[in-house]
Amino acid sequence: MADETLQNGMTGGETKPPRVVIVGAGFGGLATAGALGNSPIDVTVIDRRNHNLFQPLLYQVATAALSPADISEPIRRTLGRFKNINVMLAEVTGVEAVGKTVTLDNGTSVPYDRLVIATGSDYNYFGHDDWRAWAPGLKTIHEARLIRQRLLLAFEKAELSHDPEEKKALLTSVIIGGGPTGVEMAGAIAELGHFMITRDFRKLEPDHMRVILIEAGPKILATFPDNLTQYALKALEKAGVEVMTNLAVESVTKDEVIAGSQRFRTSCVIWGAGVKASPSARWLGIEGKAGGRIPVEPDLSITGFPDIFAIGDTALGLAEDGKPLPALAQVAKQQGQYLGKALRAKLLDGKPAEPFRFHNRGNTAVIGRDAAIFDFGKWTLKGRLAWFLWALVHVYLLVNFEKRLLVSVQWIWRYLTQQRGARLIDENAATSVPSSTQRTET
Amino acid sequence: MADETLQNGMTGGETKPPRVVIVGAGFGGLATAGALGNSPIDVTVIDRRNHNLFQPLLYQVATAALSPADISEPIRRTLGRFKNINVMLAEVTGVEAVGKTVTLDNGTSVPYDRLVIATGSDYNYFGHDDWRAWAPGLKTIHEARLIRQRLLLAFEKAELSHDPEEKKALLTSVIIGGGPTGVEMAGAIAELGHFMITRDFRKLEPDHMRVILIEAGPKILATFPDNLTQYALKALEKAGVEVMTNLAVESVTKDEVIAGSQRFRTSCVIWGAGVKASPSARWLGIEGKAGGRIPVEPDLSITGFPDIFAIGDTALGLAEDGKPLPALAQVAKQQGQYLGKALRAKLLDGKPAEPFRFHNRGNTAVIGRDAAIFDFGKWTLKGRLAWFLWALVHVYLLVNFEKRLLVSVQWIWRYLTQQRGARLIDENAATSVPSSTQRTET
Repeated sequence: MADETLQNGMTGGETKPPRVVIVGAGFGGLATAGALGNSPIDVTVIDRRNHNLFQPLLYQVATAALSPADISEPIRRTLGRFKNINVMLAEVTGVEAVGKTVTLDNGTSVPYDRLVIATGSDYNYFGHDDWRAWAPGLKTIHEARLIRQRLLLAFEKAELSHDPEEKKALLTSVIIGGGPTGVEMAGAIAELGHFMITRDFRKLEPDHMRVILIEAGPKILATFPDNLTQYALKALEKAGVEVMTNLAVESVTKDEVIAGSQRFRTSCVIWGAGVKASPSARWLGIEGKAGGRIPVEPDLSITGFPDIFAIGDTALGLAEDGKPLPALAQVAKQQGQYLGKALRAKLLDGKPAEPFRFHNRGNTAVIGRDAAIFDFGKWTLKGRLAWFLWALVHVYLLVNFEKRLLVSVQWIWRYLTQQRGARLIDENAATSVPSSTQRTET
Repeated sequence: MADETLQNGMTGGETKPPRVVIVGAGFGGLATAGALGNSPIDVTVIDRRNHNLFQPLLYQVATAALSPADISEPIRRTLGRFKNINVMLAEVTGVEAVGKTVTLDNGTSVPYDRLVIATGSDYNYFGHDDWRAWAPGLKTIHEARLIRQRLLLAFEKAELSHDPEEKKALLTSVIIGGGPTGVEMAGAIAELGHFMITRDFRKLEPDHMRVILIEAGPKILATFPDNLTQYALKALEKAGVEVMTNLAVESVTKDEVIAGSQRFRTSCVIWGAGVKASPSARWLGIEGKAGGRIPVEPDLSITGFPDIFAIGDTALGLAEDGKPLPALAQVAKQQGQYLGKALRAKLLDGKPAEPFRFHNRGNTAVIGRDAAIFDFGKWTLKGRLAWFLWALVHVYLLVNFEKRLLVSVQWIWRYLTQQRGARLIDENAATSVPSSTQRTET
């Protein structure tokens, strides 16, 4: 495949190293870059943000348990030890597949011999992009901070309010989408609210608060086995979350959600109802399938573009059984590791690649303190033990030892004292809305 | 003094407790509230922000060493253990001294028997308030985050730039004002920049960077003895800071500072050139003196208003030698502790107050790693030992054990590894400017 490309890449001078450009520094992009680190390959990583982000714990930033810096770090630092890797903070605006360059928002072009597209996914508002302002998803630090501010500010306003109806509306959160993100947010908001009402506020009662989780389908956590879903449902209800299934949202405005025949006055809406691939398919003039994902070959190259690869949420890869691979961090990470190694073998030694194979490491969701679920395919785990395992795994997956230490210290502290973390309102940010409709996975 | 007021306060019913309202939850307000905690006095603390903030370490947030949540905590949590204290997130718009109420921005009135004004200070732009947008001070988390974003974004842009002049401008920071804040910021920016250039960036050289500290007077750190000032000057120059004294700033725009006959192209300007009291004097229809500070009696009541007290940066208190007390955290804290005890003794036991006396605990400034100065009046300390003492004292002064633990862990980690902390750019906030011209000390 594309041997002439490698030679083209080398014709500028016999010692000129092959160039790999990676767009997006999420789980997939970083794994690719890591596998290409300290090789005689010239690697450039382009991202619109300066930091990577451990998205699985972002809900803890949104619910004031962790600080943004606990789960993110500058991409330059993550990749700093690899002298062959350059990092660029820039936005890609197009790909010139014939001339083999990537165009940036500042007008410059970056040449490549191999291009890796790892731009992740964005929340799908299914044609209602105007809902985004009132119902942010949970993909960026900015969104997490926005949700945190709305939640905390609503409680402060409720404390001052003398109108019982207004008080109730201020203390009502609506989470749309019953997948892992929705379940985690609903559980965490219920916990945070209960904690704040019992400890910190004088004029609020626990029954003033409502946390509503709306799912359009017949059950929450649809990808998990029934016994785990049942457990999660009970755990959510025990935490005070009202779970409403088979209910489709019709309208989202600043302070109201309409679903079916019901109207919910609310101060905080969170969107977790589905994702679509980042729109990078249009750079290549192709049409993405199934949520905009780009179909890839077994070697992860994009069909029809042998020198361009797509991984992670952007790519539509197939499992051995022919089913699409899920949009999960572990898929992106495994694809990145595979692709980095494959490019290294191909570009340096001319070795062709074995097809990519996904190894399922288990699927998890956390409902709250002492309550999580794990699905390992052959066996499952739930309850306190699953929660401890979840915490261990997530600390382990953090990017470096310092973050592991900081997050562990805070979690242990909070587990023992039942205190909460970063409950800050930055007034200048509290009223802003997410500005972009296209987001890179960072 | 004002015995009839207490009786007035008590006429609503014999069991009605006396009411103390405290505006501002900075060092002074929190100390007052703490001293009134768990007493039969009805205390209300009003602040426009939900968190207190340990301002002495705010420069470490601005220079990406600490996270905002490491040095701030919800006021509700700090005061949560005192059942007699209510917290309100609101902005005070006026005081009705005859009717004894405080008016809030939402139109409601809060009655008091004794009122404590502890609203702190704001940076003084000496009539050039339009400079604020380009030269933020360092009083709030929002400003610290804004400075952090500007610094980090400038380095990212410089890495991509091919124009040497532009590169230099992007890597030039100008700090206006040679007091402790200016010195701390200049030292920390020089350290951060040097670290990032040598470790993380591929296309930047140390001599691309300039950190310029401008002081209008003849010397920096004017309140410190000469031997310490000399040491600080040498330490700054060793760190690569250009210190320019006797230089008055004439103009600040988005990317240029003009001072004397010099023009500095820059990407980041920081203001530390002087403070003025928060404008709460106007609530009472009086004119503040010396930077807007409100003159107070020896018992800290405002001259002419025996039931209203002012403490901290807002107040113009006098030392025993008749000189004005400096605008320092330790003054605010001591005044708050004194006033809380005095109000308790007066309101509960009818005991009159002894005059307030300030005890100087020593004055300090930090230039960078292993370099700080202490002035204890009779003796001084400088260098590495002063730096360790500075670190110990500041960890000890943090609001609770969890913050002490988190900050210690991070500082020790960074001291050993020479790594840096929270280097995050949140793109939505990077372009915003401070919105308010009046800021409460929080």
